[in-house]
Amino acid sequence: MWMDTKTEAVEASRSRSSLSQRVWNALLLCTGDMEHLDKYMKDKFIVLQLVVCCLRGVTRVTLANNPLSGALILAALYWASPWQGLLGTLGVLASTLTAVIIGQDSAEISGGLHGFNSMLVSLLMGVFSSAGDWYWWLLLPICLGSAASVFLYSGLSSVLDRWDLPVAVFPFNIIIVLYLLCTGPDHPYFPHHPAIPAGVLNPNDTTLVAVELIRGIPLGVGQIFACAAVGPSLIILGAILLYSPLLAIHALLGSAIGTLAGLSMVVRHDSLYSGLSGFNGALGCMAVGGLFFTFSWRTHLFAITSAFLSAYADIALSKLLGSVGLPACSWAATLIATLMLLLTGSLAAYRIPIGQVMAPEQNLQSRSQWDAGNTAERESTDV
Amino acid sequence: MWMDTKTEAVEASRSRSSLSQRVWNALLLCTGDMEHLDKYMKDKFIVLQLVVCCLRGVTRVTLANNPLSGALILAALYWASPWQGLLGTLGVLASTLTAVIIGQDSAEISGGLHGFNSMLVSLLMGVFSSAGDWYWWLLLPICLGSAASVFLYSGLSSVLDRWDLPVAVFPFNIIIVLYLLCTGPDHPYFPHHPAIPAGVLNPNDTTLVAVELIRGIPLGVGQIFACAAVGPSLIILGAILLYSPLLAIHALLGSAIGTLAGLSMVVRHDSLYSGLSGFNGALGCMAVGGLFFTFSWRTHLFAITSAFLSAYADIALSKLLGSVGLPACSWAATLIATLMLLLTGSLAAYRIPIGQVMAPEQNLQSRSQWDAGNTAERESTDV
Amino acid sequence: MWMDTKTEAVEASRSRSSLSQRVWNALLLCTGDMEHLDKYMKDKFIVLQLVVCCLRGVTRVTLANNPLSGALILAALYWASPWQGLLGTLGVLASTLTAVIIGQDSAEISGGLHGFNSMLVSLLMGVFSSAGDWYWWLLLPICLGSAASVFLYSGLSSVLDRWDLPVAVFPFNIIIVLYLLCTGPDHPYFPHHPAIPAGVLNPNDTTLVAVELIRGIPLGVGQIFACAAVGPSLIILGAILLYSPLLAIHALLGSAIGTLAGLSMVVRHDSLYSGLSGFNGALGCMAVGGLFFTFSWRTHLFAITSAFLSAYADIALSKLLGSVGLPACSWAATLIATLMLLLTGSLAAYRIPIGQVMAPEQNLQSRSQWDAGNTAERESTDV
Repeated sequence: MWMDTKTEAVEASRSRSSLSQRVWNALLLCTGDMEHLDKYMKDKFIVLQLVVCCLRGVTRVTLANNPLSGALILAALYWASPWQGLLGTLGVLASTLTAVIIGQDSAEISGGLHGFNSMLVSLLMGVFSSAGDWYWWLLLPICLGSAASVFLYSGLSSVLDRWDLPVAVFPFNIIIVLYLLCTGPDHPYFPHHPAIPAGVLNPNDTTLVAVELIRGIPLGVGQIFACAAVGPSLIILGAILLYSPLLAIHALLGSAIGTLAGLSMVVRHDSLYSGLSGFNGALGCMAVGGLFFTFSWRTHLFAITSAFLSAYADIALSKLLGSVGLPACSWAATLIATLMLLLTGSLAAYRIPIGQVMAPEQNLQSRSQWDAGNTAERESTDV
Repeated sequence: MWMDTKTEAVEASRSRSSLSQRVWNALLLCTGDMEHLDKYMKDKFIVLQLVVCCLRGVTRVTLANNPLSGALILAALYWASPWQGLLGTLGVLASTLTAVIIGQDSAEISGGLHGFNSMLVSLLMGVFSSAGDWYWWLLLPICLGSAASVFLYSGLSSVLDRWDLPVAVFPFNIIIVLYLLCTGPDHPYFPHHPAIPAGVLNPNDTTLVAVELIRGIPLGVGQIFACAAVGPSLIILGAILLYSPLLAIHALLGSAIGTLAGLSMVVRHDSLYSGLSGFNGALGCMAVGGLFFTFSWRTHLFAITSAFLSAYADIALSKLLGSVGLPACSWAATLIATLMLLLTGSLAAYRIPIGQVMAPEQNLQSRSQWDAGNTAERESTDV
Repeated sequence: MWMDTKTEAVEASRSRSSLSQRVWNALLLCTGDMEHLDKYMKDKFIVLQLVVCCLRGVTRVTLANNPLSGALILAALYWASPWQGLLGTLGVLASTLTAVIIGQDSAEISGGLHGFNSMLVSLLMGVFSSAGDWYWWLLLPICLGSAASVFLYSGLSSVLDRWDLPVAVFPFNIIIVLYLLCTGPDHPYFPHHPAIPAGVLNPNDTTLVAVELIRGIPLGVGQIFACAAVGPSLIILGAILLYSPLLAIHALLGSAIGTLAGLSMVVRHDSLYSGLSGFNGALGCMAVGGLFFTFSWRTHLFAITSAFLSAYADIALSKLLGSVGLPACSWAATLIATLMLLLTGSLAAYRIPIGQVMAPEQNLQSRSQWDAGNTAERESTDV
């Protein structure tokens, strides 16, 4: 059912007329990349266009690209903490406007590509700040950091384009590290909590609580947005599910693998319980399983490998960066996903060029159409 | 007046004959890249050619390229400290000779491109050495470091060429970091002062002295050469002014922005007073404002952004490197300038290919000539 | 004599028939890259092919490529410590099989290019482990690390190919650093010895013992395989000699230079005695002297420079990485060799494209043939 193209589904809905069919079709319209929305929005108000591209930017954090998912995620963040929600909104807005001002490519802007790094920068600045909520001075570094993320995105894309690699969240990782270095735990204006490396096992942590461990898996998906509450994390997972069920499954799978890797390396228990051990695995798993590569059983195995590598690399990097008081952010997943995209051999055959990446289900469909076209052509040539 | 080409100015001076005109023309001959000197020097003694290319190398540190400015800067350094002047001279000589021996491109050598990194290496080795002045054993690592900078310059240029990026002072930054790591504060042969990160505010630093702060701004220009005296710093500023007034203005502006950024992040007061907070801002501002990009109001705004980014990145990096006892040198400005050169969007339209970079005023002139040519051509095609 | 091609030698041996001639010819067949073996092996059992490509992988660590040398080296490692020998064997096997499974290029696999990084990863994991020999749990990270090295090799080769650079031992260096970070000195499952930076001179180290110093030079060659015993080190040196006398001479020379550099920087005496100061110099010297560049007196001088740079960079990096408890491994030699390959100027003229690199003697021969061909052609054109 999923395989049908949406336009076909819309046309089909006119002839048939059961209610359930209509609901299903309406739902289908809300999934995937929602490209039809862009056509519809073309002549609408500029403000509405800005809202849509900001919402797309919000979902880009989870590698998705769907304004409705973005609205859901934003709602989840406001639920978890209104202050964090506000910071996130401000970050996306600031960077999107900066991108417009410094004349970045309009297709990139409307695709939300300049929003997701600043979203993360502002959320993490908020989470690490030890000045408490509603500390309005924090808006200053958030606006500056968001603007800087656009510069880094643009500069890095020039370099990474040579290998057809996405910029991913490199700008976020760089800016948050520089910001935390600049300010420090006892800065008079912008103090922040010191980062605790994942690898220091507390002597009190003797017995693992299975329920907490399992709760850590969906929390790992929420931790992509630095959100450590169960309810909002489930909504975020739902938002990913709305974009693409395959991506949501890989997110959960990756988070579980990350928790497993954390267990094998005996990290602190609250790192496991809070989902911090899982989110790098989740990101690494999502990138390979269906998004940048056509989904298949082989890609699925590579996605599991990528999740393991991301999780272990995260433990290593959190110790390295922790020795200078810095968090590992999502360095591990970003580096491992980049490595996977560079891989030669059997995985490279499933690689989708960056410009053509869509929701996993749509990738799968366009691949099968392409293959079918190729086969048909070959057959017609044979005759 | 500045816009006139130099040769026109020379011809004009023959017909008109007031004294002031002649002085002005002679001055014009000494500004900018002084390319006419190269033609004049072609059949002269090899020693004189070597002197000119070393002096060009000296100015390259400040992104300038003018042998007279080089002589001025060298005089300023000898004034500040004869020992430092000697080290700088030796460094430039050693690396230029190394470049000749290992067969580097002769146009690069005569343009002074192999001199500026070793100049900085030797000056910084001298400044960090805690063995006192006239410690002759220091000449050994200076010669080795200068030679190594040529290897790094050549190797890095192969990599950075792909993106038409300059090597800038990456070799200097790498070598000085390796040297300081190799030796350490209590090395028996080459001891050095430990680096103090800029971010540790001294509890005694309670009130800021405005005069000292303002004095820190020209000192920030001097600190590009690790020179912390006001007189020599002003001469260095004068040398940049001789090469290009636009570059000198951006140097001062960048240094002021760096000081401002330092204030906002509450760095140590002596870091502000000594100009150490300003020099990365100055370099970042100079690179964007007129040198690698045609000057315009837009480029000017980007130059200010670049200065802010360089200054904040410098504070962050000085804390990071300070945690292992290393100085941040000019890593921040070099990285941010590289980022700016990679930027897509409206700034990229003003980008000048590395091979055609000249003094800002000449860049502006060749751009307007080129634009005029294009317009004329289009008009003639229209008819 | 060496200059004759092997096939000529074989043919010649049929007509002449002295015994010494036959022995010599048989020996010649066992030196160099032994390409004739690949042709002979083509239709043989897959297991035998696997053994040969694993043995090639073992020698690749020393930049050689000869299955007999590989067997010798493996024998030396088993002699030094049967446990280490086992780990090394397992590492090469695991990564070669991983490469087959993830569909890497078969020419690369049979050339042993996927074996040498994992060989080093497993040897170093064994050496650093403080759980003692025959701690079977160690096989788990060794298999994982070996598999990961194939991913890194493949990913990095996509990037480095742009500059025709070899991947070298970058994957090993990255993985061992990540592994040591992940586990740490008091890990409950995989504890390891902390790394002691080379630069801390022990106050007890007052007088140098010349004999120990000289013994450190061949040990430097053994330390490439983390082997600190004299006998096995000499066998390893013999294995390199079997592949190429020129390479062996450069290995010894580089190790001596590394010891000299260590002396000049006053490193700990046991670092000198154990050969740890020498092995980066040896690798740096071997890469430039004959392997990636046609041998000549000029290349020889560059090889000496490369050895010095590698040795000094190693001292610097061992202090940097030592400050977070990590060893410097062979980062220095790998980076410096990469730099040398990127160099423009007179060295670049001797550069051999990566795809055509063979044993130094064969490189020399194909170069002279090529030159002779060029001269002959030019002469015929002249007539």
